[in-house]
Amino acid sequence: MKRVNSVKILSALVGLCVMAAAMPLPALADEGMWLLDNPPRQILREKYNFDPSDEWLEHVRLSAVRFQTGGSGSLVSPDGLVMTNHHVGADMIAKLSTSDRDLMETGFLAASREQELPCPDLEVNILWSTSDVTDRVNAAVTGEMTPAQANAARQRVIAQITAEAGDQAGTLAEVVALYQGGRYHLYTYKSYTDVRLVMAPELSIAYFGGDTDNFEYPRYCLDYCFFRIYEDGKPLRSPRHLRWSEGSRAGDLAIVIGHPGRTSRLNTVDHLRYLRDVEIPDRLGILWRAEVKLQEFRARGPENDRAGRDDYLGITNSRKAFTGQLAGLLDPGNIERKATAEARLRAFVAGDPDRAARWGDAWDKISAAQEARRTWALRHRLVTSTLGSDLFRYARDIVRLADELPKPNADRLREYRGSQLESLYTTLYSPAPIDPSLEIFRLESALSLLAERFGADDPLVSALLAGKSPRRRAEELVNGCGLGDPAARRALVEGGGDSVRASDDPMILLARAIDGESRSLRSRFEDEVEAVERENYAKIAQAKFALEGESTYPDATFTLRMSFGAIEGYEEEGRLVAPYTTLGGLYERFNRRAGQAGFELPESWTGGKGAIPSDTPFNFVCSADIIGGNSGSPVVNTRGEVIGLVFDGNIQSLPGSFIYDGSVNRTVSVDSRAIIASLKAIYKADALVREILGQ
Amino acid sequence: MKRVNSVKILSALVGLCVMAAAMPLPALADEGMWLLDNPPRQILREKYNFDPSDEWLEHVRLSAVRFQTGGSGSLVSPDGLVMTNHHVGADMIAKLSTSDRDLMETGFLAASREQELPCPDLEVNILWSTSDVTDRVNAAVTGEMTPAQANAARQRVIAQITAEAGDQAGTLAEVVALYQGGRYHLYTYKSYTDVRLVMAPELSIAYFGGDTDNFEYPRYCLDYCFFRIYEDGKPLRSPRHLRWSEGSRAGDLAIVIGHPGRTSRLNTVDHLRYLRDVEIPDRLGILWRAEVKLQEFRARGPENDRAGRDDYLGITNSRKAFTGQLAGLLDPGNIERKATAEARLRAFVAGDPDRAARWGDAWDKISAAQEARRTWALRHRLVTSTLGSDLFRYARDIVRLADELPKPNADRLREYRGSQLESLYTTLYSPAPIDPSLEIFRLESALSLLAERFGADDPLVSALLAGKSPRRRAEELVNGCGLGDPAARRALVEGGGDSVRASDDPMILLARAIDGESRSLRSRFEDEVEAVERENYAKIAQAKFALEGESTYPDATFTLRMSFGAIEGYEEEGRLVAPYTTLGGLYERFNRRAGQAGFELPESWTGGKGAIPSDTPFNFVCSADIIGGNSGSPVVNTRGEVIGLVFDGNIQSLPGSFIYDGSVNRTVSVDSRAIIASLKAIYKADALVREILGQ
Repeated sequence: MKRVNSVKILSALVGLCVMAAAMPLPALADEGMWLLDNPPRQILREKYNFDPSDEWLEHVRLSAVRFQTGGSGSLVSPDGLVMTNHHVGADMIAKLSTSDRDLMETGFLAASREQELPCPDLEVNILWSTSDVTDRVNAAVTGEMTPAQANAARQRVIAQITAEAGDQAGTLAEVVALYQGGRYHLYTYKSYTDVRLVMAPELSIAYFGGDTDNFEYPRYCLDYCFFRIYEDGKPLRSPRHLRWSEGSRAGDLAIVIGHPGRTSRLNTVDHLRYLRDVEIPDRLGILWRAEVKLQEFRARGPENDRAGRDDYLGITNSRKAFTGQLAGLLDPGNIERKATAEARLRAFVAGDPDRAARWGDAWDKISAAQEARRTWALRHRLVTSTLGSDLFRYARDIVRLADELPKPNADRLREYRGSQLESLYTTLYSPAPIDPSLEIFRLESALSLLAERFGADDPLVSALLAGKSPRRRAEELVNGCGLGDPAARRALVEGGGDSVRASDDPMILLARAIDGESRSLRSRFEDEVEAVERENYAKIAQAKFALEGESTYPDATFTLRMSFGAIEGYEEEGRLVAPYTTLGGLYERFNRRAGQAGFELPESWTGGKGAIPSDTPFNFVCSADIIGGNSGSPVVNTRGEVIGLVFDGNIQSLPGSFIYDGSVNRTVSVDSRAIIASLKAIYKADALVREILGQ
Repeated sequence: MKRVNSVKILSALVGLCVMAAAMPLPALADEGMWLLDNPPRQILREKYNFDPSDEWLEHVRLSAVRFQTGGSGSLVSPDGLVMTNHHVGADMIAKLSTSDRDLMETGFLAASREQELPCPDLEVNILWSTSDVTDRVNAAVTGEMTPAQANAARQRVIAQITAEAGDQAGTLAEVVALYQGGRYHLYTYKSYTDVRLVMAPELSIAYFGGDTDNFEYPRYCLDYCFFRIYEDGKPLRSPRHLRWSEGSRAGDLAIVIGHPGRTSRLNTVDHLRYLRDVEIPDRLGILWRAEVKLQEFRARGPENDRAGRDDYLGITNSRKAFTGQLAGLLDPGNIERKATAEARLRAFVAGDPDRAARWGDAWDKISAAQEARRTWALRHRLVTSTLGSDLFRYARDIVRLADELPKPNADRLREYRGSQLESLYTTLYSPAPIDPSLEIFRLESALSLLAERFGADDPLVSALLAGKSPRRRAEELVNGCGLGDPAARRALVEGGGDSVRASDDPMILLARAIDGESRSLRSRFEDEVEAVERENYAKIAQAKFALEGESTYPDATFTLRMSFGAIEGYEEEGRLVAPYTTLGGLYERFNRRAGQAGFELPESWTGGKGAIPSDTPFNFVCSADIIGGNSGSPVVNTRGEVIGLVFDGNIQSLPGSFIYDGSVNRTVSVDSRAIIASLKAIYKADALVREILGQ
């Protein structure tokens, strides 16, 4: 599932670097996640005979929706109807479920607009305007600054820019570092927090094949759901929306409009080695552990099974994604291709004294920063994490708000700046219920993990455990915590620093106990890694520009992009994989895998067999270049009409974080015809179908 | 399941230490895994009014069977019939299965003796004689030797002793270091390799409740199976055998005769901290990873599901066992109890100049050895492993035999000494089939693990990968390997060094590539850890003996012991857990957990409901002190009659590696009445029942 891994939006914006102008890659094929204001016009024209107009580009931009929880979506009716993936909506569907009403299992269809279910804490954004603020950002940096000082100076001016642009209610302003920091763009979004669930199929058909088929193809998933944006209590009058197509054919151009989360295509080879040998193994170690522990938790009974499901889906998805990334990095061919390109660029730089003086040290500086952080990177990851706990996350936000709000806006940690507060309060005051047994499980697991990695006698670990076993300590923290009540959280925030310092809530005390080291590791990361990367990747980007020329795409930043490609199959272990699957194939696979976990079908589908012609296209692949965060992106034709809904990439696409291979990298989508046919024939969602088709 | 974790018999014999005489613990309650020639007479008499005669002890000794694969069993008929756990026999049951005949799923009952199935590579042993060789072993050590030299000297004399005692065919000789090396006993076994499967129930009833219920109670498992030992092609005339009882009652004394694998009860507190902070987290990291990867492998199709099952059962069992051990070590109360006892002993030593001079430095020496190995312990573990692969294990044995056999017996690696060769050849020439897809999976996983832990550019890793991805390399190694054929293995061994050095089998070349570092890490472990521990734990044991007096039990060494306790329940989170479960409870749990993985029942049981009275005792718990390796041990009454079959401990027993808590530590057994009732009413195994009951 192509949701952003371990979704944190800010993390998608961290660690990118600098260049002064757009630059091209030779022979791009269908590669790239392009800015809408710098589309790949030449390739589209030459290869696909398509030349998108400004009006076309504006139309798809205003129809695109970003889910702050880490996915993409699109407006598909004049009345604020949003289409996305089931797995993008899943955390909300889970939060709207109770032990009596398990919407993940049963699916949901609002019988009328009045019955659409308000989401407790979902924010969605529509990109409203963009402007280039590169000069203003760079003007804050002077020649004698260290990388850390330069980074801080940029952060301060960015804080000012976003404060100016985002002071209106309902507006979210972000400065995005594009081209590794070579350009800074100010993005303003219309931001909506009254979002309601309209329709979701059952998890078993949305995620048919489960972990076994995830990131694989052929595929048979109905991975969609629908929300509606409300404004002032009424359905949003959509600024624009996508119309529905008649369907697609093999060979057609498919254009993906969405929010890819993060790529590392410009990473140096040593930086890739760091990811291969340290960071990804660390992450996988945490994920394998979490997966096994969650399985044990869920197996204890049906209520645990339901409570732990959403975490489990996220963890297994991330585990499979990182496994594919690691396999890509352990394929020496990929590293060689990167090394060849790097050697060419370094030779170009070394070949001229002026270039060598300006950019020559960049690669070694980056290598040194990666090498140096090996000893503390895992500690940084774990100690600055949310411990997987909602209650701890609330407590930390409360503790930090008390410290940060009194500071001048530009001096605050970035997520507590004025421009971010509306989003923060949406999640902090969420009425979503807290499951104490799940929270105890998560905290026990997190506390034990700290002890496993750093030793139970480590001063921080020892302070957090407070002389108890992880289990007893987690019970004490959760059972004694009052932050499950949103009113209690609001009271603490509104009571300010004195009220927070006076609190004896054990979770608040825990957040205070960890905050010193958490902040200091964060600063260390920002100063010793982020700042060094930003400065030196900017040099590499400039060198690349000097060598290769003008127009290219920046690495993904969880901001709006267009990808493109043909609907076409590929070869896998000597077999040709066809681009489309059909409804008939779904039932065949269901029968072949009868009884295997993950291959169940809901009654609506076993009972509804025959209601849809078996040759109805179900899923399809195209060569568009996407990455986690693109989940829920619409796939449109040259008329801007919906032909599909992105929900995944194939297993060969997973090294796409670092490298795109057009011969096998494929985006996997639900076919638009399967969406309409299932809404009609299986779910009898006639009003929804009419709304989507504009009838 | 109480099978020895990650079964390697030799590893159970490694790392134990020295003392000059038996020593007691005060207030032992039901604690202890006692030597049969030093039984806990006083406690048995005072608490249970039982005084076992020498004849009684000899009878149970000669009725006890050790499974070289890591479990226990017992002779239960005059014709060599051996009872053990299904999970002890499972690797054989799996090896006797094919895609057409899945005995794990269907169970097995030989219709006649002719139809009993010969196991490809199972060796079982019966303890025939024991003698004290402490003086001879210690005479090899002189005062000026370093710990490593002393260790090597002891190994050489042990090699001589076993060579002398084990030169007869069918005899296995081992010198066992008891009381941390305070005593050395020579054990000779009758060894049998013609062992045939007689009867096994279906996995789903043998392991009812799966991983969820493993190490939990109440419990409903029929974890038994039966083998028969053959000698000269005929059923063994059992030297002795256990008779069947009428059953047991709550409060009865229960005596367990079996082969506990390994405990660390005498470890120093720092050594326990090392296990808590380094070794167990390392092991769990490997297990979590393996568990997730095996799940993915098995989910790919029914043949994979079957092929990967036995590995999976072993891994999940070890994972749950180590999780419980870690939880025990992360409970500060346990560490405190250990620290209090240690402080008392150290004060006793420090209080006298002579004692201080002889033993005072032992604790710090052990701490220093643990501290020093932190940096290379994981590398030692992985590089000296079998990479999880049967083909690699064969290749390594072949490569090493070529190097070791020309050496004098006493200079060889211990597993290639004359006394061990018969056992080694049993496994090396096993006709058990090799599944190439499972082998590719295992090797890909192992090669990737080395890259994840040490980096893909590490010289050894890089040499093993040979410029390929782990997947491609594993395919090349397995597809090009001829060692799947036992005749090819035998030809290489019999061809000797020249033949092995001339081989271009890729697996042989791989084994040669890793062997240098593997041997050097092993030597480092033996010299810097094992030797230091042996020398210094011997001092601690002597100090303890001086403080506490005469008679106690040694840590477990996968040699014959007796444990004892009452059949009684315990308290868990405020609830009383009753000692017995019943057949009716099985069906209740089956219905409550309907549809959950691990809680299936085979048709013989769903169809056979009502065939056995629902109040028939099914499983029971007693307070006997056991550990992994005890699986399959008979539970007998004071008359030496079978009342049950040990198959597990409860979750509270898992810290039992380090500490015994009689209030909650319980052994879990199948009740003898459930065994007979199920054989009769469900499996119609009338001949087997008559044989067991002596009718």
